Amino acid sequence: MKNIKLLVSLARRGAVGKMTRVTVRELADELEVSPQTVLRLLREMEEEGLIERNVEGKKTLIEVTPEGASFLQRLCDEISKALSTGVIVGEVVSGLGEGAYYVRQYAPLIREYLGFEPYPGTLNVRVLFPKTVFDALCNARPVIIPGFTKEGRTFGDVKAYRVRIDGVEGAIVVPSRTVHPPKIAEIVAPVNLRKKLGLNDGDRIRIEVVE
Amino acid sequence: MKNIKLLVSLARRGAVGKMTRVTVRELADELEVSPQTVLRLLREMEEEGLIERNVEGKKTLIEVTPEGASFLQRLCDEISKALSTGVIVGEVVSGLGEGAYYVRQYAPLIREYLGFEPYPGTLNVRVLFPKTVFDALCNARPVIIPGFTKEGRTFGDVKAYRVRIDGVEGAIVVPSRTVHPPKIAEIVAPVNLRKKLGLNDGDRIRIEVVE
Repeated sequence: MKNIKLLVSLARRGAVGKMTRVTVRELADELEVSPQTVLRLLREMEEEGLIERNVEGKKTLIEVTPEGASFLQRLCDEISKALSTGVIVGEVVSGLGEGAYYVRQYAPLIREYLGFEPYPGTLNVRVLFPKTVFDALCNARPVIIPGFTKEGRTFGDVKAYRVRIDGVEGAIVVPSRTVHPPKIAEIVAPVNLRKKLGLNDGDRIRIEVVE
Repeated sequence: MKNIKLLVSLARRGAVGKMTRVTVRELADELEVSPQTVLRLLREMEEEGLIERNVEGKKTLIEVTPEGASFLQRLCDEISKALSTGVIVGEVVSGLGEGAYYVRQYAPLIREYLGFEPYPGTLNVRVLFPKTVFDALCNARPVIIPGFTKEGRTFGDVKAYRVRIDGVEGAIVVPSRTVHPPKIAEIVAPVNLRKKLGLNDGDRIRIEVVE
């Protein structure tokens, strides 16, 4: 993958469509390879038509060709497509124990809006991929569970995103007033997910966002 | 770059966060390498923590780890950043000869909205990178040159995007009524760009979008 990193580095240095002076030593340092490796990679990329190269005395000039730039663009498009599947991978963690209290308060609304009787408790998942809960949910449409007031306390709106974990349905709930940073996904479900799926802290799980 | 293609292929097959059955032969065919090469690449990626692998008898199961998926995501972010520099690379082509007529009609408005006296003619550039004119201009803010009626003829609105070619200022004009597909960028400038820059059909040029 050093060759792709090298091509990206050249593009970042402004070499798309423009002969640009580079120093092999700098590129080698950036890629953490030897200058010889940089020269070999440049030669290979030149043969593949991804770059053009001029050596004038001690100066090396490189241009990323339209083919080279399009190659990177296509690769990025393919990656985006392969990764935008609404999958979250995370690790089971312990919550602050507040989940159960909140689920009880919202239970009638969860029944009404999500159509299931929630188990009083949430499964907390530290998100490992993508970067945050929101990165995974940006294409998904949430069910908005409206806030309410009860015994003088205010409960805010909650966004619920339907998910499936090992075939079990549930929803990631993102309260507008949450103490969790978006690295933690909090999941409600009709069952005790920990028990049903035999999960312990540190176990890795895969959450499919249902769209 | 075969290793990255392999990782993308595995992600596309749903292996992010899930042990997924693959056949080495299929992967080899897709990548156009030998099964031995696929096995070597898988071993290397496993060592780097990008995938996990189980071999059960004749079955090969692969999972793309959160690290593997994040690696691809980061690569794509880097590519996007390196390429989103508002650069268009293209090849000079001959227009239909209509450019001069239209530039004359719009000349007073070009003076008013773009601040230069246009040379009566356009430089036509077939876009080689990115895919279309619009891909390059999606982040740029156009100057809208309003349409008008003259001697019973209607001239539509024109979007003008300020650009620089070899230090010479100009603008890509995209009339709402154009016969050009978006693979052709039509450029107006205060000078005859062909003459000033010594350009011939087929010459490659680099257009910087001024934002």
